[in-house]
Amino acid sequence: MKREIIIAKNSGFCFGVKRAVDTASNKNIQEKMYTLGPIIHNNDVVSKLEESNVFSIELSKIDSLNESDTIIIRSHGVSKAVMDLLNSKNLNIVDATCPYVTNIHKKVHDYHNQGYSILIVGDKNHPEVVGINGWCSNEAIITKDGSDLETAEIPKKLCVVSQTTEKQENWQKVLSILIKTSKELVALNTICSATEVRQKNAMVLSKKVDLMIVIGGKHSSNTTKLFEICKENCNNTLLIENETELSIDFLKNTDIRIIGITAGASTPDWIINQVVDKIKLAEKAE
Amino acid sequence: MKREIIIAKNSGFCFGVKRAVDTASNKNIQEKMYTLGPIIHNNDVVSKLEESNVFSIELSKIDSLNESDTIIIRSHGVSKAVMDLLNSKNLNIVDATCPYVTNIHKKVHDYHNQGYSILIVGDKNHPEVVGINGWCSNEAIITKDGSDLETAEIPKKLCVVSQTTEKQENWQKVLSILIKTSKELVALNTICSATEVRQKNAMVLSKKVDLMIVIGGKHSSNTTKLFEICKENCNNTLLIENETELSIDFLKNTDIRIIGITAGASTPDWIINQVVDKIKLAEKAE
Repeated sequence: MKREIIIAKNSGFCFGVKRAVDTASNKNIQEKMYTLGPIIHNNDVVSKLEESNVFSIELSKIDSLNESDTIIIRSHGVSKAVMDLLNSKNLNIVDATCPYVTNIHKKVHDYHNQGYSILIVGDKNHPEVVGINGWCSNEAIITKDGSDLETAEIPKKLCVVSQTTEKQENWQKVLSILIKTSKELVALNTICSATEVRQKNAMVLSKKVDLMIVIGGKHSSNTTKLFEICKENCNNTLLIENETELSIDFLKNTDIRIIGITAGASTPDWIINQVVDKIKLAEKAE
Repeated sequence: MKREIIIAKNSGFCFGVKRAVDTASNKNIQEKMYTLGPIIHNNDVVSKLEESNVFSIELSKIDSLNESDTIIIRSHGVSKAVMDLLNSKNLNIVDATCPYVTNIHKKVHDYHNQGYSILIVGDKNHPEVVGINGWCSNEAIITKDGSDLETAEIPKKLCVVSQTTEKQENWQKVLSILIKTSKELVALNTICSATEVRQKNAMVLSKKVDLMIVIGGKHSSNTTKLFEICKENCNNTLLIENETELSIDFLKNTDIRIIGITAGASTPDWIINQVVDKIKLAEKAE
């Protein structure tokens, strides 16, 4: 039986991550390069890059690099201090910071210089948030959902930004607290629409398929969210990290005629394609 | 029976109004002057100014003035177009716009020039709001409490200001709607603390008195607000324009031992004093 396979629009890498991974991939395989921390939260991608001579290095080991070694800044971006440090070491810096994140750095830096306090809605340990905080002398107030703000002294002149992958719900929770006291509030909603658009397309697709496959890391929050959304609309939804985890037993079920696929923000196209290929191959063998 | 009379702190004229009225009052009595519209919403003050040769003139009658006639801009301020018109007529302009309102004009003009849409939280017919709107080409969205915004298309890049006499509650209502959709929100809470402080002191006082007297124009929005606040805490609250409207029948009620007084932003001290004097005189006559 021939089944229809539909891949949801905007599955997998967002623009910023694709740009960073392409930067690390599209090079002479002999040339050694480094990324400052793993380029994305996906072991398959990191292993594949290692095979082509791209290695992740932590900031604490930066002294082991030689002058003119190439270091790639991943899409999360880094603080001004880190950028200054890399420059001072005369490294060859390839800045693959997502342009949307660079825009946050710029705004935070400008408003901080204008005397605004900075507040970041996000996870204080996330590299993107750590990087943003580094553009306002690490003086930002950081909150996930504002629950820790109720008793805090909130500056009267405040610029608020968000981690690009933050939930709209948390943004609104924080803002609803700030509007009670702020005299001068500049609220820049820097949540990236890529996540929202990916979720929306997955939702639409999951409503019209007989089986939905979500590909992504089991610890990735955006993948888990995609799985939850699809599960709500299609009871028959699977979460897998790659094609090796896909059991093809479902092919025995003749009720499954349309198969939908979506993938989390850290899943490269080649992993999506491997899943599609496995299904097609199994069908041929039927 | 001797009653205690307590005047709430910060009753009456705010800084901006006092400044405008003083500007119109402190002059040679022979010299004729004009104010563009009544200088404040208080007939007693307007009559008193007329006695000293200061007359209110509407914009539509501006052609009846001669070159070099003096015209006072009241604390509410005016639009850029009106200011340009007065200048083009070579009038002697005395600008008594409240400096806090001038600051709103400046911010609105700047942000509008930077491509922001402007939203004003206030009463669209209030001269202050009409004036502010005139600093962004009369293109502002104007809302009282946001109830008309739920279905409106809200611009993504928005600068929000408030009428200086607006309620904090309405400000929060409007902002809680805007934070749902705005991408870039500059929220300048331009509610003047004079109003808040006056309201707070009136509220505190109204909780501990047996009778509360609010003095001010019945069409004045800030006086009406004061009246509402006091009425919530003291069922026995009166709104009067001046001492002539005060019936002293309440003196027969021996339950009234403490009398509180507050006054709207357009009530001069001499009117407050006349009310106090009337009560004291009546008590003496008992």
